[in-house]
Amino acid sequence: MNSNQQYPISSVERLVSRLGVAAGVPEAESGILAKALVDADVHGASTHGVSRLNIYLRRIQQGLIDPAAELGIQTLRPAVLVVNANNGLGQVQAVKTLDRLVPLAGEYGVAAATIRRSQHFGALSYYCNRTAEQDMVLVAMTNCEPAMSPAGGCEAFFGTNPIAASFPTGKGFALKIDLATSLVARGNIIAARKAGRPIPEGWALDPQGDPTTDPAAALAGTVLAMAGHKGTALATMVELFSGVLSGAAIGSEVGSMYKHMDRPQNVGHFFCLLDIAAFMDPKSLRRRVDRMIDRIKSCRRRSGVDEILVPGEPEFRKAQFNRQHGVPIDPQTVNELHGLCEEYGVSFDLQPNSPQR
Amino acid sequence: MNSNQQYPISSVERLVSRLGVAAGVPEAESGILAKALVDADVHGASTHGVSRLNIYLRRIQQGLIDPAAELGIQTLRPAVLVVNANNGLGQVQAVKTLDRLVPLAGEYGVAAATIRRSQHFGALSYYCNRTAEQDMVLVAMTNCEPAMSPAGGCEAFFGTNPIAASFPTGKGFALKIDLATSLVARGNIIAARKAGRPIPEGWALDPQGDPTTDPAAALAGTVLAMAGHKGTALATMVELFSGVLSGAAIGSEVGSMYKHMDRPQNVGHFFCLLDIAAFMDPKSLRRRVDRMIDRIKSCRRRSGVDEILVPGEPEFRKAQFNRQHGVPIDPQTVNELHGLCEEYGVSFDLQPNSPQR
Repeated sequence: MNSNQQYPISSVERLVSRLGVAAGVPEAESGILAKALVDADVHGASTHGVSRLNIYLRRIQQGLIDPAAELGIQTLRPAVLVVNANNGLGQVQAVKTLDRLVPLAGEYGVAAATIRRSQHFGALSYYCNRTAEQDMVLVAMTNCEPAMSPAGGCEAFFGTNPIAASFPTGKGFALKIDLATSLVARGNIIAARKAGRPIPEGWALDPQGDPTTDPAAALAGTVLAMAGHKGTALATMVELFSGVLSGAAIGSEVGSMYKHMDRPQNVGHFFCLLDIAAFMDPKSLRRRVDRMIDRIKSCRRRSGVDEILVPGEPEFRKAQFNRQHGVPIDPQTVNELHGLCEEYGVSFDLQPNSPQR
Repeated sequence: MNSNQQYPISSVERLVSRLGVAAGVPEAESGILAKALVDADVHGASTHGVSRLNIYLRRIQQGLIDPAAELGIQTLRPAVLVVNANNGLGQVQAVKTLDRLVPLAGEYGVAAATIRRSQHFGALSYYCNRTAEQDMVLVAMTNCEPAMSPAGGCEAFFGTNPIAASFPTGKGFALKIDLATSLVARGNIIAARKAGRPIPEGWALDPQGDPTTDPAAALAGTVLAMAGHKGTALATMVELFSGVLSGAAIGSEVGSMYKHMDRPQNVGHFFCLLDIAAFMDPKSLRRRVDRMIDRIKSCRRRSGVDEILVPGEPEFRKAQFNRQHGVPIDPQTVNELHGLCEEYGVSFDLQPNSPQR
């Protein structure tokens, strides 16, 4: 396990929300941001969680994120929203877009939205899981700041460009697909550098474009797409839907959240939402999904494999544990929250739960 | 190069169409089938081309494909079609569905369809490229007969479950993403067996579930997903949309085209069609796509790489060559066409083009 302390979920949400309000985010919207960030930590995706609050608030201070941005919506056809996030917070503008997309999907059976002039907006599966609870299936994509070279190239053009979708089940959790199109997230390379470990060949190229096992060289270079040309093709698809079709920045034009403190990111997102009831009875759909899950889990296993897990199941188990014991927040993030509280005159009131054995 | 002779495209289309009619396919629909099959050969995807005609006609003879099936359409919501292919030919029922989807996407901006009780329907990119010409973007998925084990398993549950999408460009070809979620297509393993070559480790498992480099053992076992858990997650997503949401067979329930001559395949497809004009001016979109292509192609290259190709570009070059010199058909397929012509009393009139240097 790790040495992170665990905190009551509601108290972390409350603190994040109060900090957002202190930075100029309207109260209801700050609540949206807090819920989205904490949900990522609850599911074990701490790279998309509360650890990001600090940079978001720094970017608000620099005028690169508008904490109270209105959502600009153009409707050229009844089932499509063309959204301008106006440099608002990614999570806030995405949830507001989704809230408008749900009734459209209900009416027409399917509805889609592009969002331009947005930011890093955390874990795609947060949005997908939300709609799965309403018996709707969301396909979500986003472009990201450049990190990955196209097959044959050695220059960061694409972001790690993830794609996600969640289906409801009768098992208490959504069957959740959520994957970056890079072979590994940069976070794994950062972790290897911290631990002084080499990285496996095939993960990344150094700045000269040669394969490297040195994490520092990899971080200065580019990560590689999963499965070579196939991963590049998928990253291209994600870029087309989220960057090109939205009118956002494309590929290497996307601003870096940490490096570019002089311009907005102009990230683009793509949502396509389907109402299950437009296809079949949602109860039947859940039964069919459950049958598939049962059959996958009962497949003959490779030697050394104790259990086959379906996508979303590992994160669900982490979330179950964390909902009982509290959300783990790393010490550096706790320090940052402390610092932000002092800066904004917000009282720091996080108390870790008593440690578990 | 290979030793295949090249034939005039229109004469191959005509012959395939006449054979379809002789087997009971209505004339217009047989033309749809012929165009789809020959287009795959023109683009170099001969595994989805005319080589499949023989098995389609055998399955018609066995009553497993209804050559004149009506399309059953249920409309629960305005922008969604719930289609029953009634065991018709996959390509024919898919094109008929798409023809009905296009006006819906035009009206609502986005429209979706599931198709159940279908068959092998060839290359997804055929459908995607068709709609790209109309300034619409089609996301297409299909499940397939079982070939691939889930991560951790060693039993064929998933098919090679491809996903595809094409965007229009100003470059004379569509930017076309079309990828199986398996690491390699079974065709590559069959080719290695024919050539007496071992296959690389990581492609497949033998029937005991152990990694193998023996192509025969691999063909008796299962192929592996691209990029491990990520490929399994993508295959799961494709199965959910095309198999589960459509009401078709799911995973290992899908019938094998060659092995199961006693039951229909019950393949499921999923289409989601977006009208570009619902998002932005299609001319602007093409310019934005072209700009992305130019920037990808001008990325710094890895050593030994002469040119960076974008997805769809290699197939476009093959198609350009074949449109000029004729479509290559392998000798075994030519023999099968001969045999089918005798069987159905259709005159065999294919004449290869004079050989190119």
